[in-house]
Amino acid sequence: MVNLMVNKLVIFGVGLIGGSFAVALRRAGAVGEVVGVGRSAANLKLALEMGVVDRAESDLAAALRGADLVLLAVPVGQVPRVMADIAPYLETQTVVTDAGSTKQDVVAAAARLLADHLDRFVPAHPIAGAEQSGVGAASGELFQGRHLIITPSTGTRSDAVALVRSLWEACGAKVSTMSPQTHDETFAAVSHLPHMLAFALVDELAARPDGAAFFRFAAGGFRDFTRIAGSSPEMWRDICLANREALLREVDAYLNHLGQLRELLEAGDGAALERHFALARDARRKYLLEK
Amino acid sequence: MVNLMVNKLVIFGVGLIGGSFAVALRRAGAVGEVVGVGRSAANLKLALEMGVVDRAESDLAAALRGADLVLLAVPVGQVPRVMADIAPYLETQTVVTDAGSTKQDVVAAAARLLADHLDRFVPAHPIAGAEQSGVGAASGELFQGRHLIITPSTGTRSDAVALVRSLWEACGAKVSTMSPQTHDETFAAVSHLPHMLAFALVDELAARPDGAAFFRFAAGGFRDFTRIAGSSPEMWRDICLANREALLREVDAYLNHLGQLRELLEAGDGAALERHFALARDARRKYLLEK
Repeated sequence: MVNLMVNKLVIFGVGLIGGSFAVALRRAGAVGEVVGVGRSAANLKLALEMGVVDRAESDLAAALRGADLVLLAVPVGQVPRVMADIAPYLETQTVVTDAGSTKQDVVAAAARLLADHLDRFVPAHPIAGAEQSGVGAASGELFQGRHLIITPSTGTRSDAVALVRSLWEACGAKVSTMSPQTHDETFAAVSHLPHMLAFALVDELAARPDGAAFFRFAAGGFRDFTRIAGSSPEMWRDICLANREALLREVDAYLNHLGQLRELLEAGDGAALERHFALARDARRKYLLEK
Repeated sequence: MVNLMVNKLVIFGVGLIGGSFAVALRRAGAVGEVVGVGRSAANLKLALEMGVVDRAESDLAAALRGADLVLLAVPVGQVPRVMADIAPYLETQTVVTDAGSTKQDVVAAAARLLADHLDRFVPAHPIAGAEQSGVGAASGELFQGRHLIITPSTGTRSDAVALVRSLWEACGAKVSTMSPQTHDETFAAVSHLPHMLAFALVDELAARPDGAAFFRFAAGGFRDFTRIAGSSPEMWRDICLANREALLREVDAYLNHLGQLRELLEAGDGAALERHFALARDARRKYLLEK
């Protein structure tokens, strides 16, 4: 009856993303054994207790023996080190994928570090996540209805891409493919820039001597606006550095545009401000409420 | 048994704020007759059908005759015109208050236009609202647990302040007093600036030829970050212009700070970026999650 898509799954970094992937695949009956590898013993212990992984493994050879799929779900900055660590132990059939928020840097690292295995490396990015982190927040529903982007190269084996696609579809995700460059430019605009902006706002207010008085009167709009400033500083440091060029272009475009609105404000040009605000409101309604 | 705080309440602008004020006071048994005045006949008709107002009135003399309290809940930009309109008809006992998001401009308009009545004008600002507007969204729960700021002048009668305070407390609000200047500086930082930032982001993306492709992959963080960009363009034009000086200072401080983070990004200074992100995350936890 059971038709496993993956007999042995090895997850590096059993946090919110890696843990939720395991839970969703288990629910879908798509996975056999799940092995967890990570730097935090406490987190792996919790993953074991929650039944997210069947086994925690610190020996890489043992972890990777007979693996069908390896998911790298560590922070983007740690991906190269993990790739270098696992390269000697990868068996021919093992497909490797990742869940990093940036893709050009991951693809470049794979070309450098997984050279013999590059045709079975499938770069991927689930558009899910939250300011929460850690396996304690893992949920089999996390990817339901969410986008999942695969950024294959010409050399990537189509059976490897098909496996990764079908696994994420089993998790409920909507899978698209695009080039690593398009991916990084898109998410610089709709994810990395907004995080920078929210961090900058809270950081600037918090650094003031009278910061506490300001936060006291912050209402729902401020809370929503700054929710993403509650995200992991380490993870966002890595993402910003990994996608630095595209993010710098976005920050510059934003600084330029905000500077233009500032000039309209200084000139007291209410009609022009209202036009910009209306364009924004209408675009938000059109693109974000219709989904 | 019934001890009405206000026998006759007249509301100019029966939208989300004015309508919710009426509904909350009715529930508290604090108000007798509620009269609505507004520029939209359709909105007033709905307010009548919903039972938010007892009567819609277009004749100002009739509306204001015997009024105990007048609430100005029109957009900030219309407050001076309404003050000029009502001034000839205000009776001695009538207390006038407002619900505007800025206070120095309202205080200045009152000094100019309500001169004979200035001691009974109580400037106020309920920290509630949403991207929704119109009486259809009115709710007696809107002000429950929310801040309400009163910005009295030295000449404001204490019995008028006490009446406005007790009415908002009857609506469930937490009432504070501060100077109009402190009010405007505080809300420039925690409300008006974030709105400018969110409008600017969505507007900038929407104006690109490939804007639709970007919005397609916008996830929950982007939606929360830009929720306030769904707010009324007219209302926010008025607020920005009314609080222009304080808002310009905030925009400049933000542009400066974001520019600093941009320099850290360009320099690849991950440690400094992570410090700023961590300060922001910790401040958000400390000030916004503890409430």
